[in-house]
Amino acid sequence: MEITSVNNELVKETVKLQQKKYRTEKFLLEGEKCVKEAYDAGIEIVYAFVLKGKSEKYSYLGNKIILTTEPVLKKISTTDTPPEITAVGVKKDFTVKDLSNAKKVVLLENIKDLGNLGTILRTASAFNSDGIILYGKECADIYNPKCVRASVGNLWKIPVVYIDKFEDLQKNFSSFERIATLPLAKTNLSDLKKGVKPQLVMFGSEADGLSGELVNFSAKQVKIEMPGNVESLNLSVSTAIVLYKLFL
Amino acid sequence: MEITSVNNELVKETVKLQQKKYRTEKFLLEGEKCVKEAYDAGIEIVYAFVLKGKSEKYSYLGNKIILTTEPVLKKISTTDTPPEITAVGVKKDFTVKDLSNAKKVVLLENIKDLGNLGTILRTASAFNSDGIILYGKECADIYNPKCVRASVGNLWKIPVVYIDKFEDLQKNFSSFERIATLPLAKTNLSDLKKGVKPQLVMFGSEADGLSGELVNFSAKQVKIEMPGNVESLNLSVSTAIVLYKLFL
Repeated sequence: MEITSVNNELVKETVKLQQKKYRTEKFLLEGEKCVKEAYDAGIEIVYAFVLKGKSEKYSYLGNKIILTTEPVLKKISTTDTPPEITAVGVKKDFTVKDLSNAKKVVLLENIKDLGNLGTILRTASAFNSDGIILYGKECADIYNPKCVRASVGNLWKIPVVYIDKFEDLQKNFSSFERIATLPLAKTNLSDLKKGVKPQLVMFGSEADGLSGELVNFSAKQVKIEMPGNVESLNLSVSTAIVLYKLFL
Repeated sequence: MEITSVNNELVKETVKLQQKKYRTEKFLLEGEKCVKEAYDAGIEIVYAFVLKGKSEKYSYLGNKIILTTEPVLKKISTTDTPPEITAVGVKKDFTVKDLSNAKKVVLLENIKDLGNLGTILRTASAFNSDGIILYGKECADIYNPKCVRASVGNLWKIPVVYIDKFEDLQKNFSSFERIATLPLAKTNLSDLKKGVKPQLVMFGSEADGLSGELVNFSAKQVKIEMPGNVESLNLSVSTAIVLYKLFL
């Protein structure tokens, strides 16, 4: 199949996936590596626009391939330099049940920065986290193309669950060792002893920190000790240090 | 003083600072926090464009203030939403002599990602690094507005030195404990014993890793142990974990 007009209906449908409101079932995958990682992880590829002359290395996509031109790829893509392949995949939705046997869970409250979110997904996979909770109504969409890119193929490796009611959190995670990361906590991360319970490690947004609700819900509070004269660390950096120390 | 035309010569001169080739002596500072942090750290502010009606809180800038309009700020600024203040500061240039008493030095080879670079400057300040070496001809410019933003006011706290000749590195840092971070190293970061020598910790770019030259120059090689099925970590994340472990 071949589509070369930027006004083609399927091209227009695909462009819509740049916006969250249209990503109810499907999402965009941009670039060779991203598409391959998603495919290998079992993400269903609906179709893929591939630059004419480059289709050979995408033979694993079989009849999902639509040959196309640079202007079409430029229109579909969200990056400055459009990749030679942009595919549409089916989202993988998880629920809190997918965390029922989890031992190492990361909670991010109202996280908005897509780059940070993607990077944290990558780090959490690296340190064998069993799942991520995006808590609160203001969390970013993990299927935003920027987050998909920043996760570098780690978006679908572990369950990511959206929770926005405190009762749902309480009901499912009260048996966990609930650790809040707070800049003003008295305990240093280095001094935290490893417990035997499953762990829920909670991080607030860079702008607002953890809410009082979640601080109250926590059983322990820790801070990353910083000798230097710096107000705070980047959120994906803090998360990485804490997961390295607690999950490894 | 007041400038309201986007075609004013000083506005045009200021816009040029968005490009590296014009940043030989001066650079852009965007936003309230960024300007204040730079000022407090002793960065010389040449002038500052401030939105009319907002100048009161910038009284510390005295006669450096130029009152202006939103269109001018939009033209000068590199962000989607222009801030109410954009200032021009004088760069602070460091040389290898500024590292002569350093004990904890971070080397980044051919680092190109501006967000990562800014975040690493912030992390290095937090863990009391004495300086950063940007090694190789392809390193990004720390005075790029995106890097200035990502460093969140930590750009001028510690010396950042550009070195592109191996001889210069060898001459000045051979007495250091030279630690290379490599994904395939045999020693785990957790098992690295603290030495007594000053430390030079070296990181390659995300795309290419450390060059053979620097691996040969290293006395020890370490990796961050990752139980999960992930190819690598984000560079600012790796750096944070290593500095937390070695510099704290």
